[in-house]
Amino acid sequence: MSTQHTSQAEYTAAAATADSPPQASESEVREGVHAIARQAKVAARALAAATGEQKNAALLAIADALVAHAPQILTANAQDVERESAAGMSAGLVDRLRLDEARIAGIADALREVAALADPVGEVVRGQSLPNGLRVRQTRVPLGVVGVIYEARPNVTVDVAGLALKSGNAVVLRGGSAAARSNEAIIAVLREALAAQGLPADLVTSVDAYGRPGGVELMRARGLVDVVVPRGGASLIQTVVEQSTVPVIETGVGNCHLYVDAGADVAQAVAILMNGKTQRVGVCNALETLLVHRDAAAEFLPAALAALAGADVTLHTDDVAASYAPEGARVVPATAEDWATEYLSLDIAVRVVGDMEAALEHIRTYSSGHTEVICTPSIAAARRFTQGVDSAAVMVNASSRFTDGGQLGLGAELGISTQKLHARGPMGLAELTTTTWVVEGDGHIRP
Amino acid sequence: MSTQHTSQAEYTAAAATADSPPQASESEVREGVHAIARQAKVAARALAAATGEQKNAALLAIADALVAHAPQILTANAQDVERESAAGMSAGLVDRLRLDEARIAGIADALREVAALADPVGEVVRGQSLPNGLRVRQTRVPLGVVGVIYEARPNVTVDVAGLALKSGNAVVLRGGSAAARSNEAIIAVLREALAAQGLPADLVTSVDAYGRPGGVELMRARGLVDVVVPRGGASLIQTVVEQSTVPVIETGVGNCHLYVDAGADVAQAVAILMNGKTQRVGVCNALETLLVHRDAAAEFLPAALAALAGADVTLHTDDVAASYAPEGARVVPATAEDWATEYLSLDIAVRVVGDMEAALEHIRTYSSGHTEVICTPSIAAARRFTQGVDSAAVMVNASSRFTDGGQLGLGAELGISTQKLHARGPMGLAELTTTTWVVEGDGHIRP
Repeated sequence: MSTQHTSQAEYTAAAATADSPPQASESEVREGVHAIARQAKVAARALAAATGEQKNAALLAIADALVAHAPQILTANAQDVERESAAGMSAGLVDRLRLDEARIAGIADALREVAALADPVGEVVRGQSLPNGLRVRQTRVPLGVVGVIYEARPNVTVDVAGLALKSGNAVVLRGGSAAARSNEAIIAVLREALAAQGLPADLVTSVDAYGRPGGVELMRARGLVDVVVPRGGASLIQTVVEQSTVPVIETGVGNCHLYVDAGADVAQAVAILMNGKTQRVGVCNALETLLVHRDAAAEFLPAALAALAGADVTLHTDDVAASYAPEGARVVPATAEDWATEYLSLDIAVRVVGDMEAALEHIRTYSSGHTEVICTPSIAAARRFTQGVDSAAVMVNASSRFTDGGQLGLGAELGISTQKLHARGPMGLAELTTTTWVVEGDGHIRP
Repeated sequence: MSTQHTSQAEYTAAAATADSPPQASESEVREGVHAIARQAKVAARALAAATGEQKNAALLAIADALVAHAPQILTANAQDVERESAAGMSAGLVDRLRLDEARIAGIADALREVAALADPVGEVVRGQSLPNGLRVRQTRVPLGVVGVIYEARPNVTVDVAGLALKSGNAVVLRGGSAAARSNEAIIAVLREALAAQGLPADLVTSVDAYGRPGGVELMRARGLVDVVVPRGGASLIQTVVEQSTVPVIETGVGNCHLYVDAGADVAQAVAILMNGKTQRVGVCNALETLLVHRDAAAEFLPAALAALAGADVTLHTDDVAASYAPEGARVVPATAEDWATEYLSLDIAVRVVGDMEAALEHIRTYSSGHTEVICTPSIAAARRFTQGVDSAAVMVNASSRFTDGGQLGLGAELGISTQKLHARGPMGLAELTTTTWVVEGDGHIRP
């Protein structure tokens, strides 16, 4: 390992204190986090000059190293699982925390897929030769240092490090304390593999040694950290958005709507409804509200509600929709709270609307701006709907579940953005870059 | 005028209170600003569906209306100028505040140039047909409601309104109180012209009636205002960046560097230096620091420093550079403060460096990330320099003054961004848009 970078021993010693209560004062934490961010910046500079081949070789080497070091990662992970189970963590969360050989193999495979993607760095976004002979090109370059704040899923450690490295960035990580031992073991493997490839180990660092205050300082290291990406639930994201002075790339909640227009194909609309609601209930591109044109209700709703009830979905409906519910269905009267809720469960809100304008008004009032779906055979209706909503994605006769970087052909994704600046919708490698204008002249001066 | 929108009379009555001390409580100001932002959102929705032809017709109509109503605008402007001159405003600022017929004609011409640009809305940024038959396209759409906070230059009122309208957005303006009467008169003309074109007058609104607290609420209307753009000096921008909870598109300061490498063509390098330093001293793309490779110093610096001194430029130099200054030049020893200063005046910092790495280290330490210039005949040196700096623009053998939307072929610009997210470098119409993913299927569901 190069002596320029923090030694593995020093690093591991610091990370090993991750689960002790932080003893450091606020200014010590700040100085420590700033020092880590500065090391990351130096490392990022070296990576910015690396070729795509070097970056891909490093990603493949990391994938191999994770598999080769699976035993020590699993030992560390078992400590986290045991401690958190004993402390009463829910079975669902323990499952997200737990690693096994198959999961490590899956994580490694995901890295290999990232290696196979096109390198975003160096892409010429716009370019031309101007009439005065200046050659102008706007070129993608790495952001620099990416801070990532996430919860108790150790796979995120590798996923985000892989996407960041591929796009030429260093990462500074702040993982959940529940996964502290697992993350420590994984980060050690990543750093060792990077160094063995001749790249700076400091491309992957962590502020976990500073506990929660380290995460806060990471969000506030404006000028040292170029962007912070929160990965986790709505409350984590909200906290980061509110507290960060570093620019945030935000993944959002998905209160996604399906609007079934008059004249929609009933079988298609039911298939799109069931795919959106029941294929995976806990994801941001799942459907949460069904809006039905009143002229479609009599034909569509009996079939739709029967299918939903048959899949054990609880129906939160207005009075008109309730009248179409099958015998035995769980039907609850919908309130405004239902319209605003991202259930992430086998629940759906159902409302019959007078026309598309009423559906658009409902969506504009309650949507989180993620994905809206229309089922219609009409070009005019599809165009009106597409223009009338203000969301990251609009599906015409297709499932909301397609709002996904992999499904839309972007390759791996960092998440789905519901913000409007910088990134909207599935965020791929390009969203982890910025651009530089490079202008070449022959002694040109401005007249 | 359509009755859906705030009447001109009501609006003018509210705006007329702009220069009285605000009487409203904090919550009244908040409610007032939120109501204006909501009206703007409704107006923006109508504009999002307008064709490029409709928007261009409106821009041309506004240009004509400004010229036609020049007498009343000049009357209002004269009141501002008289009041501010009496209150002791500097002659330079009064000059920026003052309008005359020629300036109004210039403002109108700028709008006609914006009308002639390509419409960014509807541009397909990426698109493909996927193997499963889904048609995917990422399409530019307006941001929605753009808040603009600016100082005492009434031309900004029209410039930003024009760019916003062309890109399909509504603007909510907060101008400096020094230009209150001028802005009120201009906004009235804009609103009347929009309404006469069948577009909502509320595409252009102002919170000036609420004074400074109105500007603060505008920055904090997250969810109602999509982006805030500060236009003005460094302290205005800093205030907005710190206080805003709405995302900010920020224009930055320019501490721009020229590095003259060993072997650079002396005549070319002197021309690029003089163009960058002396063509316009008060702009962000002016040069502020000159770095010279020590092997170039003996040949380049005597010519360069003589030219600078001949143009009345004060030289803030290190000891080595000082030894090349001509007789009679104003030479001041440079301190670290000089390296960090954006002079915006006939001053330049000059340093001789041992090699390009030292120049890059200097630039990375002191640059504001705007524009860096290298003069070199070497491809390898140009590539190393381009990769080694971290700025919005890099010029190779060309003047820093080319970092400008008009010069780089983007058409009109909103400013130069030194931030990395969303927009970097000259910001044109595209930077006032976001994108939506539109996906068309034939009943596609995710397997």
